[in-house]
Amino acid sequence: MPRMPGLRFTVLGRDPSTMARVGRIRTPHGTIASPAFAPVGTQGTVKALTPRDLAGIGVELVMANAYHLAMRPGADRVARLGGLHALAGWDGPLMTDSGGFQVFSLATSRTVDDDGVTFRSPVDGSVHRFTPEEVVAVQGRLGADLVMVLDVCSGFPIARERAAADAERTHAWARRAADAHDAPDQALYGIVQGSVYPDLRAESARAVAAIGFEGYAVGGVSVGESKDEMCLAIDAAVSHLPADAPRHLLGVGHPEDIVEAVARGIDTFDCVMPTRVARNGGALTMAGRINLRNAAYADDPRPIDETCACYACTRFSRGAVRHFLLAGEILALTLVTLHNLAWTVGLMARIREAIAAGRYAAFRDIFLATYAAGAFAPAAGAR
Amino acid sequence: MPRMPGLRFTVLGRDPSTMARVGRIRTPHGTIASPAFAPVGTQGTVKALTPRDLAGIGVELVMANAYHLAMRPGADRVARLGGLHALAGWDGPLMTDSGGFQVFSLATSRTVDDDGVTFRSPVDGSVHRFTPEEVVAVQGRLGADLVMVLDVCSGFPIARERAAADAERTHAWARRAADAHDAPDQALYGIVQGSVYPDLRAESARAVAAIGFEGYAVGGVSVGESKDEMCLAIDAAVSHLPADAPRHLLGVGHPEDIVEAVARGIDTFDCVMPTRVARNGGALTMAGRINLRNAAYADDPRPIDETCACYACTRFSRGAVRHFLLAGEILALTLVTLHNLAWTVGLMARIREAIAAGRYAAFRDIFLATYAAGAFAPAAGAR
Repeated sequence: MPRMPGLRFTVLGRDPSTMARVGRIRTPHGTIASPAFAPVGTQGTVKALTPRDLAGIGVELVMANAYHLAMRPGADRVARLGGLHALAGWDGPLMTDSGGFQVFSLATSRTVDDDGVTFRSPVDGSVHRFTPEEVVAVQGRLGADLVMVLDVCSGFPIARERAAADAERTHAWARRAADAHDAPDQALYGIVQGSVYPDLRAESARAVAAIGFEGYAVGGVSVGESKDEMCLAIDAAVSHLPADAPRHLLGVGHPEDIVEAVARGIDTFDCVMPTRVARNGGALTMAGRINLRNAAYADDPRPIDETCACYACTRFSRGAVRHFLLAGEILALTLVTLHNLAWTVGLMARIREAIAAGRYAAFRDIFLATYAAGAFAPAAGAR
Repeated sequence: MPRMPGLRFTVLGRDPSTMARVGRIRTPHGTIASPAFAPVGTQGTVKALTPRDLAGIGVELVMANAYHLAMRPGADRVARLGGLHALAGWDGPLMTDSGGFQVFSLATSRTVDDDGVTFRSPVDGSVHRFTPEEVVAVQGRLGADLVMVLDVCSGFPIARERAAADAERTHAWARRAADAHDAPDQALYGIVQGSVYPDLRAESARAVAAIGFEGYAVGGVSVGESKDEMCLAIDAAVSHLPADAPRHLLGVGHPEDIVEAVARGIDTFDCVMPTRVARNGGALTMAGRINLRNAAYADDPRPIDETCACYACTRFSRGAVRHFLLAGEILALTLVTLHNLAWTVGLMARIREAIAAGRYAAFRDIFLATYAAGAFAPAAGAR
């Protein structure tokens, strides 16, 4: 399959002692500096923020979910309303996940066969059928810039034989998705499966790369396996993916995991973590995660993160954010979400700088020591 | 009591055929063009918006509630965190209501005597006592620019004798509050009670004006009485209030009520209505209120209000807002709230223009005919 104008990826620099690389992903709706983190807007919006909030903190890519949007409001309705960019009020780059993970984790009464998967909508109980071709078509109607093939997302733990079968079906579906894909302004990503088995991951990467996609995603990680298992799975996959295509790690977003995966050659990430923990008062700082609901912050006049220049940190104290959290005010969710994403965007910028300067290994070691120290001793965040 | 530098009010123009006037209220935190509408941020924030959202649509005054903030996080805590402006992240003019209305409508186990009122906090059941002096002190610790005396807010319906007694106690408390007030950067407002009895309203206005305040509020309206009764109560009060002080109407914010009350000499308003209905999908338009949850809007590509230039109307379709409402996304609450306040701010600007041009009576008639027509035929909002 020839490269389509939907995506142009340029590697701008490589770290000498890791697989980390800094690059640029051009899409019809703008350019993404990589490594990049995409906040998740499952239903077409990142929870508790407006698109202009996202643009204001430098977010360059948003991940939406084809499965959720197909269930509600429906892909045809999104198309009638002008497509996903119009629905979302976001004119920057958009990625949609195919829904493979969701069909296999959320849908009820699911039956899978070689041709596709039939399931009931959790929204209204209606019966739907996703095939590789249908999911390409759904994403075509939504109109994101970067789209994913339908995959079979292996659960965890899983026996080797079952993981191998899931991966094989994933490859067969990927071939059909590639054949069905004909939108020149959408870049189609293949997805690597294989669970925690490095040889299956390697085989899956080779199989998907052989089909030929504009981008590649590693799926089925961060589903319960250990950090070491995840790292080995990424290593095995990345080493068999083409060097000139961007690599996305699906569903990974803990800062320490991002930092490790970048060292293993991953270019883009998406995860609900920074926004989900925010809505419970969890704030990311360089010294680890702190919980602003903690009574220790009740009279704390300092910003969420003293090194952060985001709107939440320049205008609100920890004590104020805690008050709004306890009072059930949406403002608190907005402020902590905004901060967590600004902080993550800032982390990605530091990552890119470190790679460009050829000192990523040192950056990784220092970050992990600092962040993990805070993460495992949350009280250190309070006075 | 001498006028304090906490407030300077200038009447810039008067409508020739109504009591409407256009003016400027100077406070230590900025100037308010009047007539003005203050969105309500009960607990220190307007629900679903950030302060920069408010500033962005031209809001010039926010109303917070001393009662709620005294219950949580507590006035001392607010002071320790730098005062209410710092807590709220809002550096424009702030008004706090005294909590009279809340003590008489929300608090449980309430006992009132001549000296004050004792009640339990709905937050944690703790026992509190509000006296006129204590409420002045609480508002001093909060630090709003415009503050209210503690009043006895008459319910509805209420017998004349009871309303007279409530008003008399309100006057006695107003005298004590004026004596206790010594913050030169806070303007203290007296409150007129008297329910739906025009002679009690007139007597209350005379009594409160005789004490001498920097501003005057009309309280105990929009509590169940008819529109005619409310208008008569306002008329009776305003005609006995000094012409050189600003007049606030507590808790009124339906567009048709604002337009009528401006004609009766009211300068500022506060109400939860535009923000509360927004969170249920109710959007204000010049053709009346529409509910965006309605299925009629599912495929509607038009903005909430085709004549509105707010962020919500320039970037999102009705269909998109409906999707986010049905999906339970906070973005929907933010967008409709933003629109309703932008629309109300715009209404106030048109009101000021009409007064300045000396054609307020005509403006009022046209507005009421247009808005009421839409309000009573909501389907007209849909195609």
